[in-house]
Amino acid sequence: MYYLGIDLGGTNIAAGIVNEKFEIVKKKSTPTLANRDGKLIIKDMAELCRSLIADCGLTLKDIAYAGIATPGTANSETGVVEYANNLPFKNFPIADLLKEYLGVEKVYIENDANAAAKAEAIAGAAKGAKYSVMITLGTGLGGGIVLDGKVYSGFNHAGAELGHIVIQKDGKQCSCGRRGCWETYSSATGLANMTREHLIKARAEGKKSIIEDMIGGNLDNCNARVSFAAMKQGDEVGKAIVDEYISYLASGIASIINIFQPNVLSIGGGVCGEKDYLLKPLVDEVFGQTYTKTGVSPQCEIKIAELGNDAGIVGAAVLGL
Amino acid sequence: MYYLGIDLGGTNIAAGIVNEKFEIVKKKSTPTLANRDGKLIIKDMAELCRSLIADCGLTLKDIAYAGIATPGTANSETGVVEYANNLPFKNFPIADLLKEYLGVEKVYIENDANAAAKAEAIAGAAKGAKYSVMITLGTGLGGGIVLDGKVYSGFNHAGAELGHIVIQKDGKQCSCGRRGCWETYSSATGLANMTREHLIKARAEGKKSIIEDMIGGNLDNCNARVSFAAMKQGDEVGKAIVDEYISYLASGIASIINIFQPNVLSIGGGVCGEKDYLLKPLVDEVFGQTYTKTGVSPQCEIKIAELGNDAGIVGAAVLGL
Repeated sequence: MYYLGIDLGGTNIAAGIVNEKFEIVKKKSTPTLANRDGKLIIKDMAELCRSLIADCGLTLKDIAYAGIATPGTANSETGVVEYANNLPFKNFPIADLLKEYLGVEKVYIENDANAAAKAEAIAGAAKGAKYSVMITLGTGLGGGIVLDGKVYSGFNHAGAELGHIVIQKDGKQCSCGRRGCWETYSSATGLANMTREHLIKARAEGKKSIIEDMIGGNLDNCNARVSFAAMKQGDEVGKAIVDEYISYLASGIASIINIFQPNVLSIGGGVCGEKDYLLKPLVDEVFGQTYTKTGVSPQCEIKIAELGNDAGIVGAAVLGL
Repeated sequence: MYYLGIDLGGTNIAAGIVNEKFEIVKKKSTPTLANRDGKLIIKDMAELCRSLIADCGLTLKDIAYAGIATPGTANSETGVVEYANNLPFKNFPIADLLKEYLGVEKVYIENDANAAAKAEAIAGAAKGAKYSVMITLGTGLGGGIVLDGKVYSGFNHAGAELGHIVIQKDGKQCSCGRRGCWETYSSATGLANMTREHLIKARAEGKKSIIEDMIGGNLDNCNARVSFAAMKQGDEVGKAIVDEYISYLASGIASIINIFQPNVLSIGGGVCGEKDYLLKPLVDEVFGQTYTKTGVSPQCEIKIAELGNDAGIVGAAVLGL
């Protein structure tokens, strides 16, 4: 038996056939073209799935169910996306529509960050953990909570917005309307912004940095990678940026651990490519701050997520489990 | 059948006989005398329970079980208090000791803030809620999380430390060692400190406040009540303090809602005596900040806790349910 996992994004729809070992047998994608009638998006999704099933020499009878990981507030009980920022969905019944267009009997849906957290809990960094939390450091800072094998997202399916806890009251403006959300400091976007700010300061102070070469002297070229790359080459400005970034990230993670004390907290998203350059100093800072530091309790394990870009597809594929 | 609920505090041990309607039939207390051998504390606890049972004309056979709400990290599976700040307990088996000294067959234990949250979920402000969170604004800022009728405290029973999320990075020093924890701003102690700071500023600016009369001109007399009392009499400094206090409290609550989206978030502790003077402006601020404000999702209900000082006894009494 196989599972069909669909990762619906603002730019692309990716779908994969996943086997019972949670391995992706084959995957394909098609553009979302988000600025159109939502039904057309789900029709293209069904077509993508049909061609993928055929490519694998399978039929619908080999597919236990389909799962969709979607941005926004996904009601996993009704299969309705209640609201999504980057897609034309408002109270939109994507599960029922996919059932109709594809002819599959069971379709599960979940918010993408929650699905990724479930993927890590079942087949990744948090395998075997009773309680796990995942954060994803990408354009935003996504969160997913898995308790006793089940995604936790609150009574209205809108919870687990871990990026939207304020860690600097009246701080930087967040896209959610508040000021000082963790996301504004610790997402990949936050790191790129932090890099820009440090370079402006360095210029004003006449301090040199090899980041200037990396970005061709254009601050618009700042991204989440240059500070780490510069630090690895001994650049002082690069190191100062990374230190500040890790300090904010550690502050938020220590708060999340004080709340959840999960067996495992996993970190996904682009910034994780830095691996030990990120993880080692981060772990030191976090456990200098958690409430349990002076106690006798065992500590949560902080790990880099394992499923990478496949977390959406695998997460969608395990939604029925 | 009756339940025996024991609220173990740093100053007093309070015990109550609780009936099946979760009403306290009778309660009694005795000093904890925390600076002595832990076994003597549990012996006095047993004696208190024996006398309470006799006072009610009951015997041990009428008692379904005993529950203990204790400060610190309480391992509800083993009945061991792993660590408590204000009591001489380190890996101390209080459940087994009470069984031995009192002769009762079943003893449940839980952290006091968690037990209070369970009391509110079963018999108080969050009755009927699938998911509820309670915060207690007292000396510290305590937290309790109840999901599907069960206390959630993480894999090591040390979670739900909601007061120890940082809301002002590098802010005020917290007793836990970090800076900027929510507790330092939004506990009753935080409000008293905030009052002191505002009065020092008012004095420097030559601004008058009736709080000066209330505290007899002595800043050491500042407490968590005077700012609200002054505000109700039209005092400007009092209003500025209350506004600032509510602003920090709302920031933390909005973050907790973004994480948990509980059906009910209840607020207990001394500051709650201010009722609508606290709740009304607080609710307005919180729902101007939560992530769901622009969406279509239903909103969490924020309520004043109902069980007051009895939450510990009732919470302990419902631990076996």
